[in-house]
This record gives sequence, structure tokens and C-alpha cells, in this order.
Amino acid sequence: MSRSIRIAIDAMGGDHGPAVSVPGAAMALERRPDLRFVMTGDEAVIGPLLAARPALQAATTVKHTTVAVAMDAKPSQALRQGRYHSSMWMALEAVKQGEADIAVSAGNTGALMAMAKFCLRTMGGVDRPAIAGLWPTMRGESIVLDIGATIGADAAHLVDLAIMGAAMARIVLDIETPSVGLLNVGVEEVKGLEVVKEAGRILREGHLPHLNYIGFVEGDDIGKGAADVVVTEGFTGNIALKTAEGTARQFASYLRSAMSSSWMARLGYLLAKSAFDSLKEKMDPRRANGGVFLGLEGIVIKSHGGTDALGFASAIELGYDMARFDLLSNIRGMVLGKDGPPADPKIP
Amino acid sequence: MSRSIRIAIDAMGGDHGPAVSVPGAAMALERRPDLRFVMTGDEAVIGPLLAARPALQAATTVKHTTVAVAMDAKPSQALRQGRYHSSMWMALEAVKQGEADIAVSAGNTGALMAMAKFCLRTMGGVDRPAIAGLWPTMRGESIVLDIGATIGADAAHLVDLAIMGAAMARIVLDIETPSVGLLNVGVEEVKGLEVVKEAGRILREGHLPHLNYIGFVEGDDIGKGAADVVVTEGFTGNIALKTAEGTARQFASYLRSAMSSSWMARLGYLLAKSAFDSLKEKMDPRRANGGVFLGLEGIVIKSHGGTDALGFASAIELGYDMARFDLLSNIRGMVLGKDGPPADPKIP
Repeated sequence: MSRSIRIAIDAMGGDHGPAVSVPGAAMALERRPDLRFVMTGDEAVIGPLLAARPALQAATTVKHTTVAVAMDAKPSQALRQGRYHSSMWMALEAVKQGEADIAVSAGNTGALMAMAKFCLRTMGGVDRPAIAGLWPTMRGESIVLDIGATIGADAAHLVDLAIMGAAMARIVLDIETPSVGLLNVGVEEVKGLEVVKEAGRILREGHLPHLNYIGFVEGDDIGKGAADVVVTEGFTGNIALKTAEGTARQFASYLRSAMSSSWMARLGYLLAKSAFDSLKEKMDPRRANGGVFLGLEGIVIKSHGGTDALGFASAIELGYDMARFDLLSNIRGMVLGKDGPPADPKIP
Repeated sequence: MSRSIRIAIDAMGGDHGPAVSVPGAAMALERRPDLRFVMTGDEAVIGPLLAARPALQAATTVKHTTVAVAMDAKPSQALRQGRYHSSMWMALEAVKQGEADIAVSAGNTGALMAMAKFCLRTMGGVDRPAIAGLWPTMRGESIVLDIGATIGADAAHLVDLAIMGAAMARIVLDIETPSVGLLNVGVEEVKGLEVVKEAGRILREGHLPHLNYIGFVEGDDIGKGAADVVVTEGFTGNIALKTAEGTARQFASYLRSAMSSSWMARLGYLLAKSAFDSLKEKMDPRRANGGVFLGLEGIVIKSHGGTDALGFASAIELGYDMARFDLLSNIRGMVLGKDGPPADPKIP
């Protein structure tokens, strides 16, 4: 029998703290019984929630602290006040000490990235860490990175993003040789940033193992699923992601008001309700909850701060898959593969 | 009685050439009888199409040429082969010579911008031209620029974009003091590019007339209509626009397949058909067809290459409003207003 997957959970993170993270963990455990948890946070709050869930309690070790990083804390402030003692830091420390395979937090992104860099350190061979997101497409899901870790990128960093994204796609999307596209603009006159072109040249000529570079993609190619991995620097990636989220919400709101605009429409809505429900499920942002921090000596998952238990469970299950198939070693292998021999495929 | 509005039409531009541009002009003329046209292109093709539309024929002067810029021509190639003699150039030349107030082309964007810069020249006080787009929002419409003219921007260029966008919003959205936001990322850690912050400082402290600077906005604020004018450089702007278009298409496709997934859903669809139709109309990209080139000594509208007559008519009508209220003088006044007295409001 295979070993357990151990997840460190910053139980105090997010808008709702343990009220979401504990039931979320319980939900994930039901579906993946080989999960084990290290929960960091206030035992006085976590304890009773665990006591009401005996199966979860049996699978969980609590590390007590009353220090929690505020959702609006600045990264520098969070580091000053929360280093070593906060629930966020202690979850990362559990990964560093080998007590957990992966850390999950719904806490504030900037603070989490600052602490993760400080605690786990950037991986050798990687310039700077990145945040990768799962993007629902017409063909399934793609991975888009960087969605906001660092602003600006040189060609070498874009190549690192391609490699780390491909390693994640092999595991999360289960594709042996994922296709990788560089996000660019299509207007003839400009044809994109010099660094994007240079990164394209390196990817095309580098013949990197386990990565199928397909060239430039445009904004509307992301939703088409034109590439398994879409690479861009953090400013543009963050704006593309939020613009897509905003457009989806806009469409949903139009649809809602159209469906309540007349009694015929309301009746039609009732008849088509199960179709609408499946549409709603398809567009449910909780299904793809979790930005994955890549390029550190440890994997960290950032859940949306405002998510509910179902969304938090999705973030845990994303972590489960990445730990089960050892994403970290895969990235390490592929980063080394830039200059050396190809990495070993998935190590289950 | 007010004078006519004269539009120069590159009749050969776009995927369909005169088959779309001529009926599009006829449609616009029906709604705005004071329109007059200068059509540039092959008289052998345009002539018969006009002959079948006597009202349009009476309102149109044709300037004959058999040279047309290919949709896939590179800007440099287009300039080499099409300068002076192409239908695209001749439409721009008509604006330069004062024979038309505004030029409309569905031809290739890169070539059109290159020729427009060469023929019309960049406006004094403006660094580089930009392309502005109308973006449908929950509150109506916003103007987003730059959506792809130039890549990268310093703070001064972002301020120019804010001023030009506000001038356009005053006319197209009919708002005396439009709100202006700078597109930025919200992740605490990074808080955006230095140039964006610097542009924010200038806009906040500059107290520019006819412009209400509201600070940073994020990708999902565009669709909310959080600002009348959203300012960003061309790389990010182009990717945001195309990502939103892609997401809208993705949602529409999900909706179509949901509505045909069962007979109940199909029946529901039929009952709610008029609601769906109004939704479809709301999302119709033809309603907001046209990128507007700003910052040149003349206004140029780029229609989508693949649009139909209705979409082309929308682009013409957008030009009609901008000429009627003299966008060019407004921009000139507001650009001068950076250092001097406030510009005169709308000059009808």
C-alpha cells in the first residue's frame, strides 16, 4: 500500500479561517482517505471543530499558535510579525521539515509568497518563483502562469515558467508531453515583446524534453484550450485571469436577468433548469480553486481567500495529486534537463 | 442646418471588401442621412454595388484604385507597395486633405497604423498613437486603451492615454468628466509596475480638467464598469481584450450545448427564446465594432476584418459621432490642457 499524502493546512488563513478550512479538509478526506493533515492555528478554535469530525481528528495533528496573518497585512509586515510564530509560517515550516508534502493556505497571497520564499527558498536553477492557475477551457483545463507572483520577465524566466508549467501539466492534466504556448499579441505591426520572441527562440531550438512548444498564442486562445500550458509574466497573467473572471461574471449576470425578464423566460428557465445547473457547475470557480506556487523548494497552494469548504477541498485535492506524483522532483528534473539529460517521468 | 459628416471608406479593406463595406455604408446612411462618403477602391467592383443603391450613390464620391493592401501584408511591405496608391492610403489621404472628417477601414491593423502614422503624422504633444476600444460593461460601455498599437509605455505615455481616452469618452459616452482608472494588479506583494504608479501620481496631482482619476483598477473591474476609461499599455490591453472575447465565446458555447442537452432544455430554450435573443444582442460583438486610432492628426477607425455590413455600419456610426463632436479638437485641447488652460468642451 502506498504511503499517505500529508498536507499542511494554515487553518487560520482566508476570510473564514477554520470555519472553512476544517470542513474543507473533512470533505477532501472523505474522497481521499489516505490524506493526513498538519493543521496550524488556534487549538481553541480548531479543536472543537475537529472533535465534531472524528475521522478527520484521527488523521490530523494540530500545531498550536494564536498568531495569524491578517488578510490585509503587507508582506513586509507579515514577515515582521508572523515569521516563525504564525499559522501561515508554521504550515510552510512543516513542509520544510519534511512533516508535510505540501502546504495549503487561503491567507493573503503577498504574505504567503514572501514567507514561502523566506522559509522554503527558491529552487536551484530557477530565477524567481511563479503562481500557476488552472484555467477552464473548451477542451478541458489549461495551466496559465505566472498569474501574479512577479512583474516583468526576461527570456530565461519565461523559459523557466514553460518548464515548471509543463511539469505541473504532466501531473495535473496527465499529459506526457504538454503543449506550451507563449502569450503574445497578434497585431502584425508590433508582434510582441522582444523577450517573448527570444523565449520563443530558446524553446523552439532547445528541444526540451517533455514539452511541446507550439509558438505564440493570443488572449482568446487560452479559453479555446489551444495550449496545455500558457506562459506569460505576472502582470499580464494576473490581468488576463481577472479579466476572464470578470467577463464570466458579467455573462452570468446577463443570463440571470434575461431568464427573469418575463414569465415565458421564467418558465423556460424552470424547464431547462438541469441544463442551467450543469452550466453553473461548469462555470463554478470553486472547481479550479488554487494558485500553485512553483519554483520553491516545496509546493504551496494558495486557495481563494473567500472560498467555501468545497473550494478549499478542491485546493487540497489539487495538492494531493501533485504530492502523489511528486511534482517537486519532476520540476527539479526538468529544470536540470534544460542543460542535462531528460528528467525521469512521473514517479508515483 | 448642420454640415454633413464626411467619412472616407477604404472600400477594399477587410475579409469581404466592398461586399461588406458598401452595404454597411448604405445601412449607416439610412440612419444618418447627413453622412457623405469618399470610397476608395476598385470602381469596377464598387460601381455596380452603388448603382443598386441610388441613395448611397448620390452621397458617395469614388476614388478609383486597383491597389489593395492584403490582410496578411506586413506593415513595412504594405508601406512599400501601397503608399499613395492603395485604397487604404487614399482613404487616409482624404482625411489629410480635408475631403473627409474621419477614415474607416476593415483592413489589416498593422498596415493601417503604419500608414496612418506616415500619412497623418502623430499629433503634437502626443508621444505615440494608441488604439482605443469600446468595452461592454454591466453599467453600459467603457473605453479601454491601448488595445494594441504600441508595446510598453512610460508614465508620460500612460498619462497621454488617459487624456485621449477621456476626450473620447466625453463624446462617445457623453460624460462631461469621465472617470479614469489605471489597470494594475492587486496582489499586495507586487502592487504593480513602477511606471503605473508614477502615472497614477501624475494623474492624481495634475488635477487635469475634464478627467476624474479614480486610481488603480484590476482586470475584473473592467467588466463591472468601475471606470469610464481604463488605461494600460498595448501588450496587456490587447491580451485583456482578446481574453475577454474568448471567455464570452466560451460561455456562449457552453450555453448553446447546455440548451440542446435534453428535450426539456430545448423546450425551455424555445419558451425563453426572446430572452435569449436579447442576451445574444447584448453580447453581440458587432455592436461595439471598431478600434479608434487616437493621437494622430486625424481620426481613423479600424473595423474588425471579418465583420458584416451591420458591424461595418456600427464602425461608421462611431466615426459619425466623433466627427460631429470634433474629437480631434477635443483631444488637442486636452493635450494642451496638460500644461495650459482647460480645453473647450464639446464643439458641435
